[in-house]
Amino acid sequence: MRTLDEHRAVALALAAPLGAVETPLADALGLVLAEDVRTDEPLPRWDNSAMDGYAVRRADVLSVPVVLPVVVDLPAGSADEAVVAQGTAARIMTGAPIPAGADAVVPVEETDGGTTHVQIRVTPVPAAHVRRAGEDAVPGDLVLVAGAELRPPHLAALASTGRATALVHRRPRIAVVSTGDELVAPGTPVRRGQLPDSNSWLLAAAVTDAGATALRLGPVADDPAALLALLLELDADESVDGIVTSGGVSMGAFDVVKAALLAQPGVEFVPVAVQPGKPQGLGRLPAGTPIWTLPGNPVSSFASFELFVRPAVRRMLGFASVERPAVAAVADEGWRTPPGRAQLMPVRFVRDDRVAPATARGSGSHLVARLAQAQGLAVVPAEVDEVLVGDTLHVLKVVP
Amino acid sequence: MRTLDEHRAVALALAAPLGAVETPLADALGLVLAEDVRTDEPLPRWDNSAMDGYAVRRADVLSVPVVLPVVVDLPAGSADEAVVAQGTAARIMTGAPIPAGADAVVPVEETDGGTTHVQIRVTPVPAAHVRRAGEDAVPGDLVLVAGAELRPPHLAALASTGRATALVHRRPRIAVVSTGDELVAPGTPVRRGQLPDSNSWLLAAAVTDAGATALRLGPVADDPAALLALLLELDADESVDGIVTSGGVSMGAFDVVKAALLAQPGVEFVPVAVQPGKPQGLGRLPAGTPIWTLPGNPVSSFASFELFVRPAVRRMLGFASVERPAVAAVADEGWRTPPGRAQLMPVRFVRDDRVAPATARGSGSHLVARLAQAQGLAVVPAEVDEVLVGDTLHVLKVVP
Repeated sequence: MRTLDEHRAVALALAAPLGAVETPLADALGLVLAEDVRTDEPLPRWDNSAMDGYAVRRADVLSVPVVLPVVVDLPAGSADEAVVAQGTAARIMTGAPIPAGADAVVPVEETDGGTTHVQIRVTPVPAAHVRRAGEDAVPGDLVLVAGAELRPPHLAALASTGRATALVHRRPRIAVVSTGDELVAPGTPVRRGQLPDSNSWLLAAAVTDAGATALRLGPVADDPAALLALLLELDADESVDGIVTSGGVSMGAFDVVKAALLAQPGVEFVPVAVQPGKPQGLGRLPAGTPIWTLPGNPVSSFASFELFVRPAVRRMLGFASVERPAVAAVADEGWRTPPGRAQLMPVRFVRDDRVAPATARGSGSHLVARLAQAQGLAVVPAEVDEVLVGDTLHVLKVVP
Repeated sequence: MRTLDEHRAVALALAAPLGAVETPLADALGLVLAEDVRTDEPLPRWDNSAMDGYAVRRADVLSVPVVLPVVVDLPAGSADEAVVAQGTAARIMTGAPIPAGADAVVPVEETDGGTTHVQIRVTPVPAAHVRRAGEDAVPGDLVLVAGAELRPPHLAALASTGRATALVHRRPRIAVVSTGDELVAPGTPVRRGQLPDSNSWLLAAAVTDAGATALRLGPVADDPAALLALLLELDADESVDGIVTSGGVSMGAFDVVKAALLAQPGVEFVPVAVQPGKPQGLGRLPAGTPIWTLPGNPVSSFASFELFVRPAVRRMLGFASVERPAVAAVADEGWRTPPGRAQLMPVRFVRDDRVAPATARGSGSHLVARLAQAQGLAVVPAEVDEVLVGDTLHVLKVVP
């Protein structure tokens, strides 16, 4: 039986950062830069005014009040290559280039606001309210580093360097296939033995939440030949970067995913020393598409996705750090854990740093309604057989 | 001059949760439930097997090994209303309903796996591996509460109750308009006095990141009549739930947003005792659309959006808690702050709980390239004139 950490490593090794593509800024939020970004231009591009006011030669306004003729009006965006000669002033707006000759800006509040002549009331300090070209960055400066997630300020920085696109790792597209003859689409009538499919919704949303695009398929029936045909079609589809299935990987007589893939040399089925989530499969289909086959109980699917698939999706996106943030939390309740197997217990935070099982009264992997209370997954090591009140737990935060 | 907290309250009061709409599960991730969700059915719907194995009468297997005839095969999804009479067994797969008469399941691993007769090797405990109907929830149980953000497990819970849709607060659509004659689209040539528009990208991405849909417009020129016409058109558009502008709200002679809206009785322009971000405007346009007019320097736009607009967008989405998570952090560097005004200083975390200004060597509101380093906004109260190394700061985390 493979340990949890061993299987995590194998699951993650199936993924690599996807290729870099030039992407319009409007589509780049949340993606990961694939190159260092340097600026070719100084930022700001020219000395400019930080205030609405008057550009002056400071030597002309050492004694105040003083009245100067206004020789030019410089709104933002002005291309005017104006000159402020001795004894004159330019009316200037925030962001407009400082005219030649001027060496300080007097804010409009410290003047009479005149348009032909202006009375200056206060002597500015040297270089007052002048933003120097290159104050933010000079040509060649590193503005953003490869590996950065593009958040709103990053897009602003890219735009400021004059870029309309960003070179980012492509967003992965992950197919999600839930399996089982017992599954029907939610909203359709349920007869004895059936239940609404929830895993395809769970896993597709988890794929989306991880930052990838989800292609939700299913539920599909327990027909190994038909399932294999579907999986091979997805494998051959160049727009599909990975496949996640749920169900059909256990010890049963009708385990469809196992039956469909047993003859695939690139795919293995292994028991993992974890509860829930013991029966796992993974590997590559013939065309190279990675596949993770998760068990079908909803809590098992959820925990398996978090531990084995989400890090791989994050790596495809180009993130260097692919793990959920973890915190040390104190058990507010105790519970028994399976001997010899690590446990992934959905927990909720009952107080700041204290957690209790989210699926009250049980760790059953079928408790899908109660799973919605989970804010974290407590990872209890295999050698622990019982969690006692007050024990410190390693908890992955699954809600931001 | 209005205080920071006063203006935050006025800015937030412009927003209310948007109307509730039935939304397909595929589109509901991240939206907020507008009703309590109860289940009409027990979950699970019927007693079912937690294992692949054999459903038996425990009284028949008290002495082991014992061989029983297999009277029926129950795959998952079986509608078979089978009966396990005394001295017989049913082969059963995980999830299949427990047949009448049976009261325990023996896992296949504890048998010889026979299909006509099965040898049972271990006596199960009472009710072994039987999941009871209603163990997760009974009819009428509250499964999800109004106000919950729909994360992947919530969608699974909704699907499990048989719902294909969720009643959620509608996702707001927010128009973003950057203004300024000096602005050109990134990627186009820049002549003297011009610079690439970065604010429309910054703010549109911030709107998206807040969970709303962004309608990015602009940059638009410094023409008050044309801008007013555009804003009134957006106001009349029922698909637009709010408007954010940047630039043109200061003391200058050409401040286009102020000029366009000064005659609007529902919109006010007020100085706020905060740095950056002193010149602010907000209110409602004639048809009722809320508008927030932010100053145009990128750091000012960013900080103003975080403090004044993002909470309002989150409230529109239906969130009860609309603030960024805040942490207490220690200043790793000191800096002067403006007397009498609160300060919003972009900071980065240099160690776990220590922060330093992200825009090294200055708090200038034009430092757009360096703003990308910001992981938080330190909110320094108005009565503080200097931050000293070791001071504890209130920091809003702007990166998840």
